[in-house]
Amino acid sequence: MKNQFYQYIQNLQDRMTSTLEEVDGKEKFQEDIWERPEGGGGTTRVMTNGGIFEKGGVNISAVHGELPEVLRTQFGVEQGDFFACGLSLVLHPKSPMIPTVHANWRYFEMYDGNGKMVTQWFGGGQDLTPYYLFDEDVVHFHRVCKEACDRHDSNFYSMYKKSCDAYFWNAHRNEARGIGGLFFDYLKEEQGFTIQDRYDFVTEIGDSFLRSYIPIVERTRGLTYTQAHRDWQEVRRGRYVEFNLIHDRGTLFGLKTNGRIESILMSLPPKVQWRYHHHPKEGSEEAKLIRVLTHPRDGICTC
Amino acid sequence: MKNQFYQYIQNLQDRMTSTLEEVDGKEKFQEDIWERPEGGGGTTRVMTNGGIFEKGGVNISAVHGELPEVLRTQFGVEQGDFFACGLSLVLHPKSPMIPTVHANWRYFEMYDGNGKMVTQWFGGGQDLTPYYLFDEDVVHFHRVCKEACDRHDSNFYSMYKKSCDAYFWNAHRNEARGIGGLFFDYLKEEQGFTIQDRYDFVTEIGDSFLRSYIPIVERTRGLTYTQAHRDWQEVRRGRYVEFNLIHDRGTLFGLKTNGRIESILMSLPPKVQWRYHHHPKEGSEEAKLIRVLTHPRDGICTC
Repeated sequence: MKNQFYQYIQNLQDRMTSTLEEVDGKEKFQEDIWERPEGGGGTTRVMTNGGIFEKGGVNISAVHGELPEVLRTQFGVEQGDFFACGLSLVLHPKSPMIPTVHANWRYFEMYDGNGKMVTQWFGGGQDLTPYYLFDEDVVHFHRVCKEACDRHDSNFYSMYKKSCDAYFWNAHRNEARGIGGLFFDYLKEEQGFTIQDRYDFVTEIGDSFLRSYIPIVERTRGLTYTQAHRDWQEVRRGRYVEFNLIHDRGTLFGLKTNGRIESILMSLPPKVQWRYHHHPKEGSEEAKLIRVLTHPRDGICTC
Repeated sequence: MKNQFYQYIQNLQDRMTSTLEEVDGKEKFQEDIWERPEGGGGTTRVMTNGGIFEKGGVNISAVHGELPEVLRTQFGVEQGDFFACGLSLVLHPKSPMIPTVHANWRYFEMYDGNGKMVTQWFGGGQDLTPYYLFDEDVVHFHRVCKEACDRHDSNFYSMYKKSCDAYFWNAHRNEARGIGGLFFDYLKEEQGFTIQDRYDFVTEIGDSFLRSYIPIVERTRGLTYTQAHRDWQEVRRGRYVEFNLIHDRGTLFGLKTNGRIESILMSLPPKVQWRYHHHPKEGSEEAKLIRVLTHPRDGICTC
């Protein structure tokens, strides 16, 4: 399974970066191949100052070795080895009219002291972070997520959408990071699902990603914007940084386990502002976004 | 003691904001008075887009009530009340030639279930974060710190300078946040020091602060700079954000105890950049800064 999934994400990385380069039309991804001293490594592909994407990364990694202390504590085991691989993607468009998007799909195996696999699971998801709210984009993103989920289980979409809203919650601001998507973890062989069923589901989600995001880029890329729109985007990007550095388990896990710092923090936006006590004017488009993020509602997606 | 120290920081806030307004020459501090639902409150004073200070805050607060869970766990007590007051200051100058500075001095009391005070202590310090390194500024800052320490105990400066280097360490980057200063905590009545001795020391440090920083502003304010210098400052400000959101105990404490979010995150710089894998050219002024931050040395201050 680990080889099967790693081949899948290698192939997915290629498909994604070539499509995103086509969409961008100006810049190419730059590739860095890195090794982890304790075992494994990855391929980081980053685009900077593109026509559409001000900063974006599509990274894969496959790491293995002794379970780091933070995981031994988390799983309550005294020793053991692990294997983990995954693809992580963050795209920060230049235009504040185009939403930021994040996705991550991963696979994990854990072994006992004798090298016998004791557990394996998939995790991941994708979520959209708009700076200006266009209902049709939100509906489109969720509809693609739902259709991919529905091909596997009619409960998945509503379960993983709820998990996504709960996970990408900036608790210290009492607001959502964005308008959600999917979030799932510890998808194991259980309750009538084989590990191959889990693989089929996660790869279906991965395959659906470009269909969920690219049409939004194509629809919004021609919209004009002013410096005021851009300032708002940079202020909201500050909330993105706050989430990733304060709350995101993946980021904090990477920092605690001696991950490659540049690949982990690739997710941070290129230009960011923090303004003291910044609040948009009542009735503005900016206030409309805040209202939705502070009152997440199942109803935002009518699909 | 709590009234004595709170009066001191109220007075210090006034002295600081009036001096900083004079130095700035363009903008005034805007004041926000806030209350904490569980007890106490504070006075936040923030300056935005000044002649010198792009963003700066000088805040005081005095809060009290039931010990929050995070503190009950930390101190290993089942119940109790607390009182805490302090002054926090962060100044982000516009010019990359002028260093950012941070200071915080605080006093804490803890009470048992019957309202009897069981312990009290002072904490705090100040540290300087330059974007370009001018040895004379570093030496001046440390010299003022040392002189204030030496009036109380000949060991204080070297102890609290070491603590400062250890505390303001961006572990995930393997580099210091800045060139240090002083950091002390849990200064209690002990080992020949009365609590009044501790008060006298902390207020001496507080009184010395403007003497340590303002001459650096005056010396560097006339220096010219380019957009490239400014870009470097904004990239380095990203490290400041990383420290505050990932490592700073004060920030994380505030976020966990339902502090006033705008006052806590006032410390974040106004404009920040994250560039993938950004490294300055060998031999440049920027590389010189990195070399000092990644190899902190006792010798940086020759005083």
